[in-house]
Amino acid sequence: MIPSLAEKEISILGKRYLPELEISLKSKIPVSNSKFFGSMRYHLGWESFDGTLVSLDTGKRLRPLLCLASCEISGGNWRSAIPAATALELIHNFSLLHDDVQDGDRTRRGRATVWTIFGIGQAIAAGNGMRVVADQTMFGVNNSNIARTSAIAASEELTLRYLEMIEGQYLDMSFESANTISTDQYLDMISRKTGALIEASMHIGSIIATGNKDFAQTFGKCGRSLGLAFQIRDDLLGIWGDPSLTGKAVGADIRRKKKSLPIVFLFQHASKDDQCWLSNAYKKDTVSESEVLDILELMEKLKVREYVQKEAEKNAEIAINSISRLGISHDSLKSIEAIAKFFTTRNK
Amino acid sequence: MIPSLAEKEISILGKRYLPELEISLKSKIPVSNSKFFGSMRYHLGWESFDGTLVSLDTGKRLRPLLCLASCEISGGNWRSAIPAATALELIHNFSLLHDDVQDGDRTRRGRATVWTIFGIGQAIAAGNGMRVVADQTMFGVNNSNIARTSAIAASEELTLRYLEMIEGQYLDMSFESANTISTDQYLDMISRKTGALIEASMHIGSIIATGNKDFAQTFGKCGRSLGLAFQIRDDLLGIWGDPSLTGKAVGADIRRKKKSLPIVFLFQHASKDDQCWLSNAYKKDTVSESEVLDILELMEKLKVREYVQKEAEKNAEIAINSISRLGISHDSLKSIEAIAKFFTTRNK
Repeated sequence: MIPSLAEKEISILGKRYLPELEISLKSKIPVSNSKFFGSMRYHLGWESFDGTLVSLDTGKRLRPLLCLASCEISGGNWRSAIPAATALELIHNFSLLHDDVQDGDRTRRGRATVWTIFGIGQAIAAGNGMRVVADQTMFGVNNSNIARTSAIAASEELTLRYLEMIEGQYLDMSFESANTISTDQYLDMISRKTGALIEASMHIGSIIATGNKDFAQTFGKCGRSLGLAFQIRDDLLGIWGDPSLTGKAVGADIRRKKKSLPIVFLFQHASKDDQCWLSNAYKKDTVSESEVLDILELMEKLKVREYVQKEAEKNAEIAINSISRLGISHDSLKSIEAIAKFFTTRNK
Repeated sequence: MIPSLAEKEISILGKRYLPELEISLKSKIPVSNSKFFGSMRYHLGWESFDGTLVSLDTGKRLRPLLCLASCEISGGNWRSAIPAATALELIHNFSLLHDDVQDGDRTRRGRATVWTIFGIGQAIAAGNGMRVVADQTMFGVNNSNIARTSAIAASEELTLRYLEMIEGQYLDMSFESANTISTDQYLDMISRKTGALIEASMHIGSIIATGNKDFAQTFGKCGRSLGLAFQIRDDLLGIWGDPSLTGKAVGADIRRKKKSLPIVFLFQHASKDDQCWLSNAYKKDTVSESEVLDILELMEKLKVREYVQKEAEKNAEIAINSISRLGISHDSLKSIEAIAKFFTTRNK
């Protein structure tokens, strides 16, 4: 498949920033005999479960990428944001380690999740440990030649946003057992669960460059909306993604009974009768294959996919509009637009 | 039961420090409708599961107590250490929230644990959230009128030690499935799991008062040994504690198949034959009541209780010796001695 312009732009940014980020990340969790740290290295795609070195899919590194780009666009030296970008990626992975336990997910990026191999308690501890490493990495920002006020502001922003992220995870879990959730409630939840840390990524990159809180807040707002766009597209791919690209069958999130945006919208907009059989289908332990097909058909009838895609694009637009007010350079704006485009059109 | 002199001393310190600590703690997790924060308030003994205000056993608050006492003994104003002491107590409770999930414990301080009421994923999130609140509280130290170098040193000490604490929890879990653990391995594990945060408590109290790292490190070492003494006495109470005081039957930790110091010592020092039947008893899902009695008898024969008590006292002595070198006042030394005495003689 020919990469889109947006994908090319992301790839250019990645080639520019990510090799140094990867070196920084690896330096924070060095190779050792400790199984505790080994489980973190396994999760990050650097080691197999027995400690053999491997080089696997490490995820998209979107948060560091946005942090470093925001630093550069704000007029800073992106290298000065490497410690913060490293901390952001570690925080993201701490949340994934716990998420996999909380959701009972057995695979991630095509590999067995940490809890399935090392145990649930161990996966909780590995996540906790990774978060401490992230905190220690943020201290590096405090001890660097970045102005003290900026360093403190960056630390406070990170902490504030990951509290929000954790609260979002909590809400997400409580939604699983709730009867009715509105799309507004759902969007508020993912704004916290996914949006908050992406907000932090752009905010922190910018504050490190400028020390200007207002400027950084606008970057942060852009990040929040980009995060929403990203997650909403993710929800779309969870149902209509190309199985050869996502590794998941069509309708995967229906089978998992995941209350993602398409489902929440469907529950809210279906007729009373349809709502009734939908509720019954979701109350059972497993959704049958014929029910999956019926739900997909109902979604088509109610144009759920179109709604979801539009919602992603709407948030991408909000992101662009908010940042364009800052009068950043034409090239910088093009970069952010490419990222937004990628977030709303990606297929995996 | 008439309180011992050591208990009286602890009670005097508690009356002096804890009311202000409690106010500080409560201000960090204010009453709200959020179930996320509600579950934290439930855990801390301030609310029932439905949000009704209650006033229950909140635990011993030992870490703040040691932090504030260390600050005062080092010549500082103990009130300046209240934010750090608050953070320490929150970190301790974050670890308890996760511990209860990791160990599958259904009750703590006579109440149902958070995971049994709010769910496992929710308890993980509540612990994570409480840790963020702790981190935010530590920022208060950074923003206060404490010297920047002392504030950073305090933050770094806290982070370093709770990484060690988490690693200790990881080791503890891996011991559960290990065949043989030596008493040295066990003591190293609890030195991390329990000792590290108590080390941090005393270190941080002292560094806030003095800014002197060498001085603070000696306080920290004292704390580490006190932590070991505390945990070893805890292990003793887990088997021979008075049921009317601990709320647990004699031999409770044997029934739970908990690999605490008495059991580890027994496995290491029993004859080959006894080791064999002990292993078999522990391999089964439940240890029978007659096996519990046999194990208690074998422990008596091998003087396990005496060994455990001596080990606690040895560590208390190390704690006193290390701190007495600093030339602190006679009264201060008496306070630390009383705490050490309490740690090694307490019955609950």
